[in-house]
Amino acid sequence: MSYTIGIDYGSNSVRALVVRTSDGAELGTSIFNYPSGEQGILLDPVDHNLARQNPADYIAGLEQTVRAALKEAASDPDFSPDQVVGIGVDGTGSSPIPVDANNRPLALDDRFRDNPNAQCWLWKDHTSIAEAAAITETAAKMRPQYLAKIGGTYSSEWFWAKLWHCLKVDPGVFKAAYSWVELSDFVPAILTGASDPTKIRRGVCMAGHKAMYSEDWNGLPDEEFLSALDPELARLRGRLYDKAHDASAPAGTLCAEWADKLGLKEGIAIAIGEMDVHYGAIGCGVDEGTLVKVIGTSTCDCAVVSADKEVADIPGICGIVPGAILPGFYGVEAGQSAVGDIFKWWVEVVLKGDASLHAELTREANMLKPGQSGLLGLDWNNGNRTILVDQELTGLLLGQTLHTSRAEIYRALIEATAFGARAIVDRIKEYGVPVERIVCSGGIAEKNPMLMQIYADVTGCEMRVTRSSQGCALGSAVGAAVAAGTFADFPSAQAAMTGLKDVVYTPQADSRAIYEELYGLYRSLHDAFGGVTDSADLGGAMKKLLEIKARTRG
Amino acid sequence: MSYTIGIDYGSNSVRALVVRTSDGAELGTSIFNYPSGEQGILLDPVDHNLARQNPADYIAGLEQTVRAALKEAASDPDFSPDQVVGIGVDGTGSSPIPVDANNRPLALDDRFRDNPNAQCWLWKDHTSIAEAAAITETAAKMRPQYLAKIGGTYSSEWFWAKLWHCLKVDPGVFKAAYSWVELSDFVPAILTGASDPTKIRRGVCMAGHKAMYSEDWNGLPDEEFLSALDPELARLRGRLYDKAHDASAPAGTLCAEWADKLGLKEGIAIAIGEMDVHYGAIGCGVDEGTLVKVIGTSTCDCAVVSADKEVADIPGICGIVPGAILPGFYGVEAGQSAVGDIFKWWVEVVLKGDASLHAELTREANMLKPGQSGLLGLDWNNGNRTILVDQELTGLLLGQTLHTSRAEIYRALIEATAFGARAIVDRIKEYGVPVERIVCSGGIAEKNPMLMQIYADVTGCEMRVTRSSQGCALGSAVGAAVAAGTFADFPSAQAAMTGLKDVVYTPQADSRAIYEELYGLYRSLHDAFGGVTDSADLGGAMKKLLEIKARTRG
Repeated sequence: MSYTIGIDYGSNSVRALVVRTSDGAELGTSIFNYPSGEQGILLDPVDHNLARQNPADYIAGLEQTVRAALKEAASDPDFSPDQVVGIGVDGTGSSPIPVDANNRPLALDDRFRDNPNAQCWLWKDHTSIAEAAAITETAAKMRPQYLAKIGGTYSSEWFWAKLWHCLKVDPGVFKAAYSWVELSDFVPAILTGASDPTKIRRGVCMAGHKAMYSEDWNGLPDEEFLSALDPELARLRGRLYDKAHDASAPAGTLCAEWADKLGLKEGIAIAIGEMDVHYGAIGCGVDEGTLVKVIGTSTCDCAVVSADKEVADIPGICGIVPGAILPGFYGVEAGQSAVGDIFKWWVEVVLKGDASLHAELTREANMLKPGQSGLLGLDWNNGNRTILVDQELTGLLLGQTLHTSRAEIYRALIEATAFGARAIVDRIKEYGVPVERIVCSGGIAEKNPMLMQIYADVTGCEMRVTRSSQGCALGSAVGAAVAAGTFADFPSAQAAMTGLKDVVYTPQADSRAIYEELYGLYRSLHDAFGGVTDSADLGGAMKKLLEIKARTRG
Repeated sequence: MSYTIGIDYGSNSVRALVVRTSDGAELGTSIFNYPSGEQGILLDPVDHNLARQNPADYIAGLEQTVRAALKEAASDPDFSPDQVVGIGVDGTGSSPIPVDANNRPLALDDRFRDNPNAQCWLWKDHTSIAEAAAITETAAKMRPQYLAKIGGTYSSEWFWAKLWHCLKVDPGVFKAAYSWVELSDFVPAILTGASDPTKIRRGVCMAGHKAMYSEDWNGLPDEEFLSALDPELARLRGRLYDKAHDASAPAGTLCAEWADKLGLKEGIAIAIGEMDVHYGAIGCGVDEGTLVKVIGTSTCDCAVVSADKEVADIPGICGIVPGAILPGFYGVEAGQSAVGDIFKWWVEVVLKGDASLHAELTREANMLKPGQSGLLGLDWNNGNRTILVDQELTGLLLGQTLHTSRAEIYRALIEATAFGARAIVDRIKEYGVPVERIVCSGGIAEKNPMLMQIYADVTGCEMRVTRSSQGCALGSAVGAAVAAGTFADFPSAQAAMTGLKDVVYTPQADSRAIYEELYGLYRSLHDAFGGVTDSADLGGAMKKLLEIKARTRG
């Protein structure tokens, strides 16, 4: 009997999961809430775009969750820590951490402890909007091929925009940073004891999706291009990495120090780190034809297409990268900048309610038929990641009367996210990525059958829920089992270790028909306010409001 | 010393006010909340467009409020009921009541007591949208002159649309009705003891603004036109009225029966009834250059232009009618379908708060600068009365992020109503009606300085508040004083009896500049969703949603 451990670094907490490789049974789990900031996130009261995280939280959580999960697993008499053959790690991204020449985060240094720019720049940090736009513009002129693989637009959530913004606003931190490491590469590096940032075996998913890395050119963007942004970025290039790796071979083996800390055997396999949703997709059983949607604060949509096929570049998606999810496949990633966060905003920020209000509104909203609220919304409260790739878009709600209820708005917000999901499915199918069913993971998918049925009716796809409620951690454990050689490849590991819940949400013809009409209206709004169609001044309205807001801020 | 009584029939209650004619001092007042329905309004749980009122409430409230107001006035030793020289009455409109041949409301008859169609059809009843559209269409073809004076579009809130809808949905009630009388004509008729509906001296303001009456043609719309709608309407015409009157001469004198009921002298003057906001405008001191805005659940904007001038027809306003407000002037009326109702919707329906939450949100919203919320809304939760004249428009809110607060939305809703107010001011000025300052009445104007300042900054006009908090009842008392011959004309009566509070809201240059930009965006939304500009499918989006909503209603 062998076991692996999957470790999932989320936006507010880290989770460890001990999994039996023969059947995916989950023997022990533990969560550690990041103690710093607000729910683990370092915020700025004035600049709502800022979102950072304390790297010390990652290290503290690593030891604590693994030991606690092992302790819980030990209640199974057949289990012993010696049977753990590997560890896999996933994390949010792009969440780059500035480190010194020994791979030590600058934030652990007293000089930088309280400097937000020396912390991890969390995926949802949007301070780099200007830099992202400049990168897109420069690449469009000098290196259009860089943009083609990432959907045509570089995002403020991504690696180079964040580094460049740091260079602009805090050159002291930028200069002190020997290198920058993505969270999902940083933790495996810690576990393998890698002390030279340039020697870390980094994952191709962060590299390809977020840092414009490709084997079609010489890895990361070339120095001429980076110099055009800022010569300092070009000088940094050599202290990053030359090659990034898919998950077919391990990142390394567990070092003595961390073996001791965790109570595991030295030398067991440490899998290549992947983005949370990529290992999540694996944990949900992603294959050709199955789109995996991880529904959390935001969503990430992952699909794969055999590397044997010719795949066109797809405009407006987050990227299409060989080996990014499964070795031997192109990984296709898309997503919505806010989903659960929108419901949370409505219930907690506006209505000042709690979890019980979510349940109450869901009950009321579930009594409504499609179209009955008369409302239509755009799901852009946190910008649009796919297919418009524009952080400077905002929410919209249309159709309010004097009788519109909070539950009707709640349903309209759910429907808005479903329409956003549909826009993604339509786009990738149009470019040849097969989507026959959608498998979801995340608490919302498990707990909200109404949402799942709405998504089925809006997308026209069968919706399923992954068996494990810890899809990302499970996927990391699958990666660990492959890295350890327990399975020859991912499909066989997935077949043994992952599965679906029985419930099936099938599109209903009558609801589909109404949602088809509503989706037509959604696309009219989407295209007008997204600037796709030329509609009076509406295309610029949201940006103009943000510009005025920035100008009038107290 | 002489006194008059003003009686104001509002949407939820009736108020009587005893006023000293020499200086406008208010000696006694009393309110009667209509006991029927919800806050005095008979609703339909399924059809949100329906709003009716029980005429018995009007009669009960008449006696009760006048007696109570007189009792309060009697605490002044100089006052005695014998010194009351006249009564003026105003009411909501168009609020037509079906009556029998003795001017008795059908609703008082046991056969019709529980029939909503036999009650007063309250101004905000929107069941007649289809009939209003058909009237507009028919008039555009056959009698374009009918439309010219009422802004180009006949509204579902108005007389003929309501009568026609009654004929369609309840021919029994329509047949039983000998005539129909507007609330503001009905109460003076009761007081004068008029028992033949065709002989009631009706006011020109309801006739001209709501029933397409004009001396330019033969009074009410002709039989050929009405026959084109429905021959039954043409047959009714002769049982309505031939001539309508301005307020220069009385409607009649107090009959013995009601003199006895009220404890007043028989034979004192009863003024011509006017719409609440028209007498309200008089009570607020309307004159050429002063726009009076009565801010309540909705708003009504009234202005006057000397009848000596040539005044062009103004598209999109509620009407321009000689003598409708002040004798000797054109009365110009416009309005917004919901203002206070929108804030009430947000606080009470959505947030489930009470008056204290209004105060709390106002405090928070007041700390924001113009533009700082990043939000922009359309004030159409109850349709658009002016300048689009389209009940089938709905609300819109734009610019929400994950941080948008309830107070920011509250302010954005206030700003949206200010932009709606600005659209009206711009339109009437464009057509030659002078607007130098705006005088407001209503509880919101008195209690919410933030709203008043926003309106000043958005409209660019000085904003003032009328001295009396009972502007409509005061205006009716002014009308009574003119009817009684205490004053030779309205300007001298207004000079003696009305005034303004000291506070002046002056437009601030910096706020004006920001609101000028925001108003530009508002107009883009307004014109796109209002169907003024050809913007993809947005012009029809709200109607399409309402159509789907109607179709999917359970």
